[in-house]
Amino acid sequence: MKRHTDVEQRLAFLKNHGGRCGNEEKMNTITYEKQVERWGIVEITCQGPPGGNPFLEQSITGRFCGKNETVTVDGFYDGEGVYKVRFMPSFPGTYTFSIEGSFIGEETGGAFEVIPASEGNHGPVRVAGTYHFAYEDGTPYYSIGTTCYVWELQNDERIAQTLASLEAARFNKIRFCIFPKHYDYNLGEPRSYPYEGTPMDSSVLTKENFSLYTGKMEGNHFDFTRFRPEHFRHIENCILELQKRGIEADIIVMHPYDRWGFSQMTKEEDDMYWTYVLARFSAYRNVWWSLANEYDLMTHKTLGDWERYAALICEKDPYNHLRSVHNCHGFYDYRRPWVTHCSIQRQEPYLSAEYVAKWREEYKKPVVLDEICYEGNIQYGWGNISGKELLRRFWEAACRGGYAGHGETLMNSEDVLWWSHGGKLRGESWKRFGFLYDILCETPGLGLAPYNLKWDCVCAVPEKEWMQPVKSYYLIYLGYTCSSFKEYYFDDETEFEAEVIDTWNMTIEKRGVFKGKFKVELPGREYMAIRLKRV
Amino acid sequence: MKRHTDVEQRLAFLKNHGGRCGNEEKMNTITYEKQVERWGIVEITCQGPPGGNPFLEQSITGRFCGKNETVTVDGFYDGEGVYKVRFMPSFPGTYTFSIEGSFIGEETGGAFEVIPASEGNHGPVRVAGTYHFAYEDGTPYYSIGTTCYVWELQNDERIAQTLASLEAARFNKIRFCIFPKHYDYNLGEPRSYPYEGTPMDSSVLTKENFSLYTGKMEGNHFDFTRFRPEHFRHIENCILELQKRGIEADIIVMHPYDRWGFSQMTKEEDDMYWTYVLARFSAYRNVWWSLANEYDLMTHKTLGDWERYAALICEKDPYNHLRSVHNCHGFYDYRRPWVTHCSIQRQEPYLSAEYVAKWREEYKKPVVLDEICYEGNIQYGWGNISGKELLRRFWEAACRGGYAGHGETLMNSEDVLWWSHGGKLRGESWKRFGFLYDILCETPGLGLAPYNLKWDCVCAVPEKEWMQPVKSYYLIYLGYTCSSFKEYYFDDETEFEAEVIDTWNMTIEKRGVFKGKFKVELPGREYMAIRLKRV
Repeated sequence: MKRHTDVEQRLAFLKNHGGRCGNEEKMNTITYEKQVERWGIVEITCQGPPGGNPFLEQSITGRFCGKNETVTVDGFYDGEGVYKVRFMPSFPGTYTFSIEGSFIGEETGGAFEVIPASEGNHGPVRVAGTYHFAYEDGTPYYSIGTTCYVWELQNDERIAQTLASLEAARFNKIRFCIFPKHYDYNLGEPRSYPYEGTPMDSSVLTKENFSLYTGKMEGNHFDFTRFRPEHFRHIENCILELQKRGIEADIIVMHPYDRWGFSQMTKEEDDMYWTYVLARFSAYRNVWWSLANEYDLMTHKTLGDWERYAALICEKDPYNHLRSVHNCHGFYDYRRPWVTHCSIQRQEPYLSAEYVAKWREEYKKPVVLDEICYEGNIQYGWGNISGKELLRRFWEAACRGGYAGHGETLMNSEDVLWWSHGGKLRGESWKRFGFLYDILCETPGLGLAPYNLKWDCVCAVPEKEWMQPVKSYYLIYLGYTCSSFKEYYFDDETEFEAEVIDTWNMTIEKRGVFKGKFKVELPGREYMAIRLKRV
Repeated sequence: MKRHTDVEQRLAFLKNHGGRCGNEEKMNTITYEKQVERWGIVEITCQGPPGGNPFLEQSITGRFCGKNETVTVDGFYDGEGVYKVRFMPSFPGTYTFSIEGSFIGEETGGAFEVIPASEGNHGPVRVAGTYHFAYEDGTPYYSIGTTCYVWELQNDERIAQTLASLEAARFNKIRFCIFPKHYDYNLGEPRSYPYEGTPMDSSVLTKENFSLYTGKMEGNHFDFTRFRPEHFRHIENCILELQKRGIEADIIVMHPYDRWGFSQMTKEEDDMYWTYVLARFSAYRNVWWSLANEYDLMTHKTLGDWERYAALICEKDPYNHLRSVHNCHGFYDYRRPWVTHCSIQRQEPYLSAEYVAKWREEYKKPVVLDEICYEGNIQYGWGNISGKELLRRFWEAACRGGYAGHGETLMNSEDVLWWSHGGKLRGESWKRFGFLYDILCETPGLGLAPYNLKWDCVCAVPEKEWMQPVKSYYLIYLGYTCSSFKEYYFDDETEFEAEVIDTWNMTIEKRGVFKGKFKVELPGREYMAIRLKRV
């Protein structure tokens, strides 16, 4: 078979061979990009019926054919008679497509050319090896995440501020919700609602009574069969803004902090919501699926519900974006085959990152610690540690082969807390994650593994070297201990370059090349690390 | 029977009734105090044979009779033909005694008067209730301990400095060894040896090779059947100096850090040593018995040996001083009936004091954390935490109803580390224990119990109030968290006075009287506590 290299040739081929895709004569009602980069988005837009309830009564799907993949995806109603189908091509080359729909009587399709990914586009993040991540093009991905639950439901000015803050801190993942959030410090109205209807009167809420309204549906009048497309369009814009900055959108699809009834919809309504979300967001390469924040507080949902949502993702996200579910108390069973990585909230006030090695062992998947107490000074025990302590937890996690997450709950006169609203970063830890990230980027291979060098330090070595008696790279983190020197011995021959890393002040001092038994001098204060690189 | 109230009457009574004690006519070869305070020491001194091996060949015992107790104790050979028997009377009033010995042919005895204890003499420390301590006169004892393994084997100047430091820090317990210690930072000769003979040449020792000599007996020539009484006499002087300052002497009788063979004596030699130690030291009211430091590193000893030593203490210490044994890795079984309290070395690098409640539950005895990492900057993971972290562990322990211990391993130009040598205190934590102690002294009752007030703080309440729904006293420790306020609600009626305690800066701020739901403002930094006292 002749290899076709451009759109025209491919279309001609399909026409001659009677393929459904690419019946170009009937394509006058649809629009789409004729050229798209690999892992970009092709969006097919069709006009269709605006009447009745299009969300319930109409359907649209697309079938995309390239040399290396054939993908069928759901489209969605985007309001005002507009229907859309989105597709993310995973390979360069020519693709054809066909669109079917309840309102499309004739063959509809077309073709487009996928060009190589532009600089900075590495594709979706995948699990790499057992415990780490890499973009689809093979570039390692070291997660440095944060949480701003409803940053995207704030006003434009604050959203812009959040994006600037994310860039400044060099975060490469952010967790946030599709639904608005009802919680202390977060009682205002979101910029939009996901459904048609009207919410309860939020002017009655105070810091004292807000918890009485959690999980109450009274006073709300939403139609859970009619989405407000502008809510989702806006979120898509935010996902794209993140994408431009190299930030993964770890989307929290459900959560319990609700006063509008979104956490208590019926099974059918839930499935309709999931289907809509999957149809809209799956084609964005930087999307991760978090089934829920604190799933175990959603008392109206059963284990069967969670497994059904997971099955829906597996069915309807053809790109296999990363999938997990975040706990409050007990973990979800991360051994479930559909779970790609652990998304952990620590389970006790003292230890969190210290358990990474245990959890790696237990789940044999990447360990992401999305909540290990936020840097903050609020009254709650999940948001009141110092920047130093949070940074310590990041390093503890990293040097055990896991990935920690940030959040900020520092009180301020504007009552804008990063953890919920985004905005300005006010703490101390965020300034120091880029430094950690740069060091992680120097790891040989895809990531770090914990190594039992001595009982009184945390030591990381390259994951791929766990079998080697002497490793090429040791990253030793000393945490809150204050030794003024450390001694090492590996063997008599191997030479190591020693560096002393101050993780708080972000300095790296070279200390020369050593072999045999050697001593590394330290400043005798907390938060130091030692790196030994085989020469 | 007539009640005798003075020495003469009592002696006359015994004489008339044929008692062995008090045959005053034959007492011309012995000396002793005619008047002694309660919990003081009566020391009976007899001249006897100096030839042969008196330690092996001679024996001496004393029998002491008062209205409320009759006590038989071993005496000991103190060198140069002097034999001694010591006794600590537990009651005021008249006592008579008789002395028997292998070299005493005739009835020997006498009488003395026990007067009430002087100010500051509260008697030996006992377990009080289940989890706490009190002196025998009922005064609560809140242990604030430290460790200086061989402080008493230093020169006089340093010993004086140690005693001054202990007073300044207000420590009321110190752990130390009878045998000298061989370990890094501690390679010099002790001021004296417990046995006749000569030690190995210590000039060969370096920081690099010292561990090769640990447990080696070569080069030593000690006679384990001949004690050097001056070694023990000196330790007794040190015990008395501690006693004067209200400090308990937590005596470590055995330990593995040995290059002289003292850790590898035979069963018979061990028993002879224990018997000698018990005969010499038991009568000092401030003595506690620690069978060993890191008993589990003494690989030449079996569980049977430890139990035999314990049985010897139980047999030969008639005053029932506190008894425990200290671990390196695994705990000794603190449930053993002879163990009066846990003497714990933490078992992992992160948590220590946080387990107090668990250990209380497990052992149903007072929990003393004698080693939870020392304030220091040496290379070892057991001696490299900051003063802040050590103070945090003290408060964590106290607010869980346990007692933490201090030590210092801060390097200095003199190479004198408190942990081993005593001397000057150089750290930061010691300045703040007196403040904690004063707060403990304000506990209603004998001590604190952990109380599960909220998941994100440590809360202590009076041990005796654990059944009461609302307690009279809450001591809430916030550790490394940094909340800028906390909210409480107990009931609508009970009024509490709230105080904010800065455990590091040692301030107590009164915040007024509250009831119902109330809020306590905090400075938003680490190491704060809140105290609520029912008005």
